[in-house]
Amino acid sequence: MLALRAPLTPYALARRALRTALQREWCRNSRALTIIAATTAPEQTGTQDRKVGVSKAQDSKGALIETQPVRGTRDFAPDDYRLRQWLFGEFEAVSRLFGFEQFETPVLESEELFVRKAGEEITQQLYNFEDKGGRRVALRPELTPSLARLILAQGAGLPLPAKWFSIGQCWRYERTTRGRRREHFQWNMDIVGVPGVAAEAELLAAIALFLERLGMSAQDIVIKVSSRKVLQAILERFGVPEDAVGPVSVIVDKMEKIPLEKVEEELTELGLSKEAMDGIVAATRIGTLEELQQLLGEGNEASQELQELFSIAEGYGIAEYLQLDTSCVRGLAYYTGVVFEGRDRAGQLRAIFGGGRYDRLLSTFGGQAQPCAGFGFGDCVILELLQDKGLVPELPHKVEDLVMVLDEQLRSKAAQIAQRLRKAGRRVDLVLESKKMKWVFKQAERCGAERLIIVAPDEWERGMVRVKDLAAREEQDVAVDALLEAQ
Amino acid sequence: MLALRAPLTPYALARRALRTALQREWCRNSRALTIIAATTAPEQTGTQDRKVGVSKAQDSKGALIETQPVRGTRDFAPDDYRLRQWLFGEFEAVSRLFGFEQFETPVLESEELFVRKAGEEITQQLYNFEDKGGRRVALRPELTPSLARLILAQGAGLPLPAKWFSIGQCWRYERTTRGRRREHFQWNMDIVGVPGVAAEAELLAAIALFLERLGMSAQDIVIKVSSRKVLQAILERFGVPEDAVGPVSVIVDKMEKIPLEKVEEELTELGLSKEAMDGIVAATRIGTLEELQQLLGEGNEASQELQELFSIAEGYGIAEYLQLDTSCVRGLAYYTGVVFEGRDRAGQLRAIFGGGRYDRLLSTFGGQAQPCAGFGFGDCVILELLQDKGLVPELPHKVEDLVMVLDEQLRSKAAQIAQRLRKAGRRVDLVLESKKMKWVFKQAERCGAERLIIVAPDEWERGMVRVKDLAAREEQDVAVDALLEAQ
Repeated sequence: MLALRAPLTPYALARRALRTALQREWCRNSRALTIIAATTAPEQTGTQDRKVGVSKAQDSKGALIETQPVRGTRDFAPDDYRLRQWLFGEFEAVSRLFGFEQFETPVLESEELFVRKAGEEITQQLYNFEDKGGRRVALRPELTPSLARLILAQGAGLPLPAKWFSIGQCWRYERTTRGRRREHFQWNMDIVGVPGVAAEAELLAAIALFLERLGMSAQDIVIKVSSRKVLQAILERFGVPEDAVGPVSVIVDKMEKIPLEKVEEELTELGLSKEAMDGIVAATRIGTLEELQQLLGEGNEASQELQELFSIAEGYGIAEYLQLDTSCVRGLAYYTGVVFEGRDRAGQLRAIFGGGRYDRLLSTFGGQAQPCAGFGFGDCVILELLQDKGLVPELPHKVEDLVMVLDEQLRSKAAQIAQRLRKAGRRVDLVLESKKMKWVFKQAERCGAERLIIVAPDEWERGMVRVKDLAAREEQDVAVDALLEAQ
Repeated sequence: MLALRAPLTPYALARRALRTALQREWCRNSRALTIIAATTAPEQTGTQDRKVGVSKAQDSKGALIETQPVRGTRDFAPDDYRLRQWLFGEFEAVSRLFGFEQFETPVLESEELFVRKAGEEITQQLYNFEDKGGRRVALRPELTPSLARLILAQGAGLPLPAKWFSIGQCWRYERTTRGRRREHFQWNMDIVGVPGVAAEAELLAAIALFLERLGMSAQDIVIKVSSRKVLQAILERFGVPEDAVGPVSVIVDKMEKIPLEKVEEELTELGLSKEAMDGIVAATRIGTLEELQQLLGEGNEASQELQELFSIAEGYGIAEYLQLDTSCVRGLAYYTGVVFEGRDRAGQLRAIFGGGRYDRLLSTFGGQAQPCAGFGFGDCVILELLQDKGLVPELPHKVEDLVMVLDEQLRSKAAQIAQRLRKAGRRVDLVLESKKMKWVFKQAERCGAERLIIVAPDEWERGMVRVKDLAAREEQDVAVDALLEAQ
């Protein structure tokens, strides 16, 4: 337990420093890091675990199983789970404040839902396999296609707009051994049925409220905003069809990672001229609405929409988060309008969240077209940032009462006391064996109990139990019937 | 939406009646049934979905994707999700009242964790496959082995007893096309480190409290209790080693499903004599503690433990749920002591939950032996029962305020109002387009809003908004600054 709870100890910090370069790739929740470290350094922590876990008794029946989770995945032991639950609780609370409804789809989906030909990283790294019935299935890499499928399944009876959210685990498979993780969780909020940028503004306002509830502000986070329609206008100018915007964006998104000549090669394959490419590069250098209007001309749709978005953002009081940045294209093929991406101001981390408008995904799936906008917000980078800023709260295990017996003969009486308190809504840990007082006090500390309730023979004869107020270090005998009022 | 919300309409009831026989096998949540029905009857509901979902506009770009989830799995659209969340919320609340800590392990595990040679159904139906790296992995069929793995991973630093719970999706794969589902959710509570039956009693008390919070009692549910030590005593008497108790139990558990001669054949393969088999059959006919004591003799461990368990249960006030039934063996190989199983009193449904003591699982995995007890409680049968008894609560979508603009020029003002209300903790739906009042009132009803807040030009000029109290059917102009106090 201690080893897993240790991200802030020098030991954990040291391990973290060693692995940071590797981990930066996908997920940098430093709590998770200690777990990843254990996975990726079997020669070190594996030995430790083995020493501890291996039976020294005769009842050992075989070799120790691998106690680490499947490569690239995380366990959430209680300490880690509490942190995750706190984070997910905030995802959920904010979604509900915005009137969104929660949904969930299976982690296993038909492969065809995710196969797109645009060369996206997400398609290339699909965690897919053939099931025993010969079907091609995949552990979902993202939630949006499943949302689209579920919306289509509802049919015409679904009242629009649908404002839905989900928190789900997403998977990817890579052969590389660089320690990159294969799963993370994502919070998605989506609005189906609203064509205007009021939808995008609402989504951005939800993110901003979430960040504020966590203790962050526009000092910490910048949201880069652009629109696929900027690229679309450029491509139109050079006679490239609108359909090419998605694939072009996927390629442009890789500019940071692959050589420019490779990018140009891929764009040429899509039929782009040298002039179109130069136009794109120029367009991705724009940082103000004025410049954008200048480039695209008066009355251009992309420019007007972004203007409107920034204006509504003023109303929400979130304008200081936003920054027009046309180099932000996002690597998913299905976006059609506004795209955005959250980054730490310090520029140390990968994208914290990203989203945009995808008005054609439903029709790509053969359904009726519906305007859609949404975002995905991962669980890893935000935790890394919160930890860096000291904003992760203390989340100890906590009960209210600890109940024990001094005499095993009274065990069923202790059971009665504990159950009554629980029915009254109190969280009660019950000592289930004969234990020394020293152990019990340690246990009271470990579970954060406020009261220790001792069922002892003499007191019980008089219809009483002994109650120790652990904070005040006071104790008194309390009538069993009065126990619930004595809180 | 309507189709999915319809389990209580005659249509849904009719569909349910049609499919009940098929579905009884594994899961009978009748809400889920409508979804399963859609999956297993493409010729009927598939057509309906297609008619609705297929684009009649020119922007349709391909054939409609399969809108149903992967065969054997469920979607949880918001109406279904709310029901699930209510149920899981009760799982969680009860676990916390008992001082248990939550954990989670990945849905994907190494196959070796689940492969046991005892002929269990759970091993035979493993949803396993080879990942792209050639590793044998499986979508977990149950949570207990993962708990054991995680406990071992904690090492000796873990303070015991560990009282942990988890709610997770479990998978199985079958080739049969009888409409049996391939996933369900399970609530598990486990106590690691307590050798005595006080642990089992505590677990049973948690289940009882859960059932009571849902409006059920011992009138509705019986918990059949037995012990693997009964079989162990019989086998000992005939010189069969203790190790055989697990495999024997797995076979005895199948008695209801497969012919007796096949059972006897399998038992003979394990080295059992005819006399031992007769002894087992006699032992499974016992229904009282007195008979048990008579069969096993004074001072027998199984008999004494069960006596103690029933006595502690009296203290908890849960004795009326319990019934000694030595024919209850549970089909998992790893149980070593007390086993139990929850059934509806009417005997209409499959097991609702089951559990017991598994003191040797950790040592089987090569770790230090630790006494363990736990249970698994599925999400399906209990919902079926609740529905039958009319105990499923109404769970409508609910916001507090619905905010709209009468003039698009005021959109950013509405954004401001909505965000202020949300920061104050109110759940606010915001109308994101120009809509007629008729639509807005319908939307207010759909989202259960208490107030409709209208941002209109004249009122705004005076620093006011119009507030309609939708229940009282009253309206007044309220100063923006006073809006939060005017609730």
